[in-house]
This record gives sequence, C-alpha cells and structure tokens, in this order.
Amino acid sequence: MSPPQITFCFDVISPYAWVASKRIRAFAARNGASLRAKPVLLGAILAYHGSLGPAELPAKRAYTWRDAHRCAAEHGLDLEGPARHPFNPLLALRACTRAASGDAQWKVIDALFDAGWARGADLSSPEHLADALEAAGLHAGILDAAVTPAAKTALKDNTSQAIQAGVFGVPSFLVDGELFWGNDRFAHLEAYLAGQDPIDAHRIAAQLQRPSDHRRKAPS
Amino acid sequence: MSPPQITFCFDVISPYAWVASKRIRAFAARNGASLRAKPVLLGAILAYHGSLGPAELPAKRAYTWRDAHRCAAEHGLDLEGPARHPFNPLLALRACTRAASGDAQWKVIDALFDAGWARGADLSSPEHLADALEAAGLHAGILDAAVTPAAKTALKDNTSQAIQAGVFGVPSFLVDGELFWGNDRFAHLEAYLAGQDPIDAHRIAAQLQRPSDHRRKAPS
Repeated sequence: MSPPQITFCFDVISPYAWVASKRIRAFAARNGASLRAKPVLLGAILAYHGSLGPAELPAKRAYTWRDAHRCAAEHGLDLEGPARHPFNPLLALRACTRAASGDAQWKVIDALFDAGWARGADLSSPEHLADALEAAGLHAGILDAAVTPAAKTALKDNTSQAIQAGVFGVPSFLVDGELFWGNDRFAHLEAYLAGQDPIDAHRIAAQLQRPSDHRRKAPS
Repeated sequence: MSPPQITFCFDVISPYAWVASKRIRAFAARNGASLRAKPVLLGAILAYHGSLGPAELPAKRAYTWRDAHRCAAEHGLDLEGPARHPFNPLLALRACTRAASGDAQWKVIDALFDAGWARGADLSSPEHLADALEAAGLHAGILDAAVTPAAKTALKDNTSQAIQAGVFGVPSFLVDGELFWGNDRFAHLEAYLAGQDPIDAHRIAAQLQRPSDHRRKAPS
C-alpha cells in the first residue's frame, strides 16, 4: 500500500499558511505521509466563492494580525510581517511552483515566506524576492522561470484543482480528497491519517440535506 | 483586585458556539475569571461587516459540518444538529438573554443548545423550544418573557455592544476589551489570563498601518 499523500495548499499572503509551512514537513514525516506543496492564488479562490478574505473586513483584519501573532508565537515564530499587506502575490507564488523551482521547491517556499513574514520584505517586489532567493543561496534564474507560461499555467491549474477539491481558504490540506482547513487543524488531520476520523459520511450527507428556512440576503 | 471577567458571545446557530458553551464555565472557574453569557444575533453582525457566514457559501457549508463534527467529538460531544439550518434563531436567543431567563440563564442556554445540536430539535420552532425548556425542568414562562420588549432590547443591545467591541463571528470571548474568536482559541485566552499574551500592541498598530497595494474588488 502506498503511503497517504498530503497536498498542502498555500498562498504567501497568509500568515497562517506561513506557520503551517513550518510544521507540515515534520508532521508528514511523523505520520508516514508523503507531501506535495501547491501554491494557490487565494484571491481567485475567494472570488470563485464570492467571499472575502480576513484582510478585507476592517474588524477581522485588526483581529487577524493579533491572532496570527499568537499562532506564530505558539510555534516559536516571531511574526514581523511583510512590508505591504495585502499585496500582489503572483510572482512569489509562481516562483513557488514546481515548474519554476524544481527540486528546490521547499527551499524557495521557505526563502520567500520567511523573507516576508519573519523579516518584513515586500513580497510583491521582484527585487525583494531576488534578494530573498540570493540570501538563501538559490539561483536567481528561478524568478525568470516564474514568469514563463509553464509557471503561470501551473499556478492556475493548482488553483483550479484546489477549488474543485472544495478549498475555500488557506492553508488547506487534502488527503484522499478529504479537506482540512487551517493551521489549527493538524490534530484533525492526524486523527484522519490514523484512521480515527469521527466523520460518518452518510449522516453528514443527510444533515446537509435538511431544510433551511432562513436565509439572509447576501450583503451588497 | 477584582477577577477578570470573560464575556462569552454566542448564537445558537453556531455548532462551535455550542461546543464552546460546554467548555467555558469550567475554563473560567479554572482560570479564576467570572463569566457573563451574551446571546448575540450573528446574522446582524455579519450584515454589519458585510460578510457571509460559513453556512452561506456552499463549499464552506459542506466543510463546516464535517469540521464541527470533529470539533464536537474532540470534546466528547456527538453532533446531531438541528432539524433546520440555518434557521431563525431570534426567539431562542431572546430566551437566552438574562432579561428573559434571569438566574436560570445557563440552564436555558444548555437546554436550547442541547435540544438543537445534541438532539435534533428545530430551534426556530416555539413548540420545540417549549419542549426543551420543559424537559430541562424550566418554566415555560421564559418563552413569554422572551417576546417582551425587555428581551428584544437586551438582544439588540448585546449585539450592538459586541459589534462595537470588534466581534465579527461566534463564539467570541471578550476580556478587558481584548477579543478572542473561536472554539479553537481557548489556549490563547488562557495565556492572556495568565499574563502571557505575546501581543505587542505598538508593533501591531504599526503593522496595521503599513501600505496595501493590492485590493480585490468586493465580490458582487
């Protein structure tokens, strides 16, 4: 039997994805799972679902920074945060695709995530991204590869596949089509991998088909 | 020095608020805090912020039921869920105000939450609510009190005060004006009460004032 595979969906725009990126490799190894990293464009995922990200609601944005600090601190990380936020993450995400980064994928992910979230770089700046790659001993050619059609297509495909799999936020973890959302859901993922997920699929299917007699109007 | 006071903001529409309601009393006692329960209308809070609840996005709704099952199971609770969802929670919430329930407030909260989330009652049905109160040995007059102007005003005031305090979802916990959101944030609340919150207010204020050069259009 082949080991389970965890697909880790992330966007460099998310502090929670940054923290999760630091935890997921040891977690996968400890649980005998293989791991695949998939950068996805959160903005496109939110647009598809017609929802808003935490940075787009003023009250939630203010809270989210505090909460992200606490979540980072829980895992020994000091959150400095990028020079601009929200920001355009396209180039950084494309650099994180396997199409652009190849076997250095995790090194690139670490270099860019840390430059922004641990050290305050502007993750929308090509110069800052180049500096981050150089500081990590990585080849600057990765940024050239990031603007090729192959890298652009890879990011688009990752994002579409994530949406198809039900992803609506980051970080998300997929195993055998089962979705886990959030840096705070490692325990659920671990139970699932150990065959101890408490979900009864038939029961939930029935619950989802129950009537609803109260719908707010969508906010305008 | 008076003990810290935790204000627990909840709506009976939320499975996470149900789970949190089972945990918060022992938690407050263990941490030497007093506790105040405040029913709030989540729909009004979401409308104020222009956001959507998890049940209003199909992908998130499907995931949320699975996740809520897992969160309930983690705390020894079996989630049956109410007969309808989402539903109109107004009468149930008004019954949970102190104006309607008086000293029996927590008994009413338990009776209604459990009737819906543990046993499948329709929490928008006056008959089901009356049955739930009766089964818990509570006075049916509480539902009469729930339709008085005092109870209606209490729910409105609770909701306005929560919005003023920055609440954007439930369950939320407020201590000295500090907000904690979610059944998964008890550890952060505990660290705060122990004087071990890692937040540097000045640093976060500066981070929130950094520029943003990328805004998606709000979904239409």
